[in-house]
Amino acid sequence: MDVIVGGGVVGLSLAWRLAREGRPVTLVDPAPASGASHAAAGMLAPVSEVTYTEVPLLRLGVASLRRWPAFAAELAADAGLPGPEALDLRSEGTLDVAFAADDLAALDELAAYLERLELPVQRLTGRECRRLEPMLAPSVRGGLLAAGDSWVDPRRVTAALLAALDRRGVQLVRARAGELLRDGGQVTGVRLEPPGGDGRPAELRAERVILAAGAWSAGLAEVPVRPVKGQIMRLRSPQPLLTRCVRGTVHGTPVYLVPRGDGELVVGATQEEMGFDTRVTAGGLYELLRDARELVPGVTELEVSEVVAGLRPGTPDNLPLIGPSGTPGLALATGHHRGGVLLAPLTADILLGEEGELAAMCSPGRFRDIS
Amino acid sequence: MDVIVGGGVVGLSLAWRLAREGRPVTLVDPAPASGASHAAAGMLAPVSEVTYTEVPLLRLGVASLRRWPAFAAELAADAGLPGPEALDLRSEGTLDVAFAADDLAALDELAAYLERLELPVQRLTGRECRRLEPMLAPSVRGGLLAAGDSWVDPRRVTAALLAALDRRGVQLVRARAGELLRDGGQVTGVRLEPPGGDGRPAELRAERVILAAGAWSAGLAEVPVRPVKGQIMRLRSPQPLLTRCVRGTVHGTPVYLVPRGDGELVVGATQEEMGFDTRVTAGGLYELLRDARELVPGVTELEVSEVVAGLRPGTPDNLPLIGPSGTPGLALATGHHRGGVLLAPLTADILLGEEGELAAMCSPGRFRDIS
Repeated sequence: MDVIVGGGVVGLSLAWRLAREGRPVTLVDPAPASGASHAAAGMLAPVSEVTYTEVPLLRLGVASLRRWPAFAAELAADAGLPGPEALDLRSEGTLDVAFAADDLAALDELAAYLERLELPVQRLTGRECRRLEPMLAPSVRGGLLAAGDSWVDPRRVTAALLAALDRRGVQLVRARAGELLRDGGQVTGVRLEPPGGDGRPAELRAERVILAAGAWSAGLAEVPVRPVKGQIMRLRSPQPLLTRCVRGTVHGTPVYLVPRGDGELVVGATQEEMGFDTRVTAGGLYELLRDARELVPGVTELEVSEVVAGLRPGTPDNLPLIGPSGTPGLALATGHHRGGVLLAPLTADILLGEEGELAAMCSPGRFRDIS
Repeated sequence: MDVIVGGGVVGLSLAWRLAREGRPVTLVDPAPASGASHAAAGMLAPVSEVTYTEVPLLRLGVASLRRWPAFAAELAADAGLPGPEALDLRSEGTLDVAFAADDLAALDELAAYLERLELPVQRLTGRECRRLEPMLAPSVRGGLLAAGDSWVDPRRVTAALLAALDRRGVQLVRARAGELLRDGGQVTGVRLEPPGGDGRPAELRAERVILAAGAWSAGLAEVPVRPVKGQIMRLRSPQPLLTRCVRGTVHGTPVYLVPRGDGELVVGATQEEMGFDTRVTAGGLYELLRDARELVPGVTELEVSEVVAGLRPGTPDNLPLIGPSGTPGLALATGHHRGGVLLAPLTADILLGEEGELAAMCSPGRFRDIS
């Protein structure tokens, strides 16, 4: 039996895909779908979020984005939902906008760079941007449309995954995995905390433990994963202000706005190296509000419905750790940093045995001393 | 019997003072201490908040501030608290700071004006301000110390009032007063909503109804009271950042910071004419954060523990309506706008029969058509 530690979007997706293959699986999490996946905006935007140094991450993202429509359709069917639109999966693209001459030049370079990677995007004037998104600030001077980029509501995805697991009879143990059980050099299960209680066993034995505990992974095994704090805000609008994702760089920090069909507008996100700190701070909230106003002045009138901080699992090279750990009995599916939602379908495929260059890029073997 | 409609700081104070005098009193409110009194910062700062056109309001405020120490001491004793410090009543004064030359000149004028009113204040240089409050922004160029101004925690005050009412056996009816009962030209009680239920009577008969329903008063009688929305924020600090109240004008809007002994820092408040709208908005929150950062940059690191909007009961001349309404059986204690906490002791004295110039200033008779 596989035991998956961690009930975020990655762990839940894995449990669901393993169960679909008929493999026995148990998932352990004291509060599934309450961490980074609950905070996340759900951008599936590998192209518009690319940076020059991260071509491998771009390739992983593009490969996983291609898997999303089928993943969503199968998940919706398995969860008993009418269709993938119940997950708010949308593909109107991301519009990356610029205010200053410097930023415009950077968009030109980025467009040329993406063309060379055979990922065509469309350069737009400020007027063309506002034709697409009339609520954009008049000061927007140009943009880049990544027409293939998509987004989804992560809360609907994790709710659907929990429903699908339930329908397939997967055991969900609502407890904390306190430590890995080891026998010689082999991982043989997990010890639960608190032990026993509620008729629960104190230990779960497993042929394989898959560590999908996100930012908390380093508490269970020697993995190079650290928490990267993100503060994110949800606004409520009577009708949607935007028809697609909009991102831009304001005062040197990137900000994005993700519109939902029901009028919710997600504004994210800070990136802070603060350890296990999930406080919403005056400074973080100030930056989100300031930058969102700069992009779309009309947000001023919207209600602030939620502000939350989550912890992304960062790795030294910003690539996830997926596959056998090197320690017998222990596999990894962690370190997804900002890409947990985007990379969930690909992660499951790799854990289910997909090989090749993409799997190799994510191999934990690239780091030493994992155990 | 008196029936008081409204369980904010004004209605609760009245009920307590009437009960202390041995008069039978019942208070009606579906959710006492949950409206403007719950949102309020609790500044007792008539001097630093003065504006040139509002000398009557200044005089009311100064008179009520003088009553606060005795009010707090008696309330604490009656509520079974160890002493008035349990209400966080503090009197270190308010520091009004200025950034620009214009603002400095305005402080000079204000100081001269207050001297003429025999309310001496102290003009300080920027350096003197920072000596008093080291966390102030380096850009603060001068200030005005109103040494007599005080502040209190309104939530502790209303909790103490509820405890004191309970100890004195005052009946608290947790229902909404739907309308006033009238017999000919006379008010004879209130009709409760929903009627009956929980063994509650559908009506309460009264010799006198005292309307203390704040922003909701105009729903029960013809009084010139309107809601003035205020958004206010609470930050949490490991230790207090300030030792006294600090206020200033940033980008043309006044902002104040009120420190509590436990490290809480209250930042307020917007003033918006939005009707009965209690949404926390992106624009309101943005202004509070921006202005607080401008005054005290260190707030950036603090946790945002609460954001709430309340509705102040505004009147055409910014003075409260206290006393007989002109309609037999109906008295008023409403329209306190930004001064409910400050003016609560004076309001009770006037309703208990204090006469003279202060009572005359608050007389509802100054407006026509109250009924």
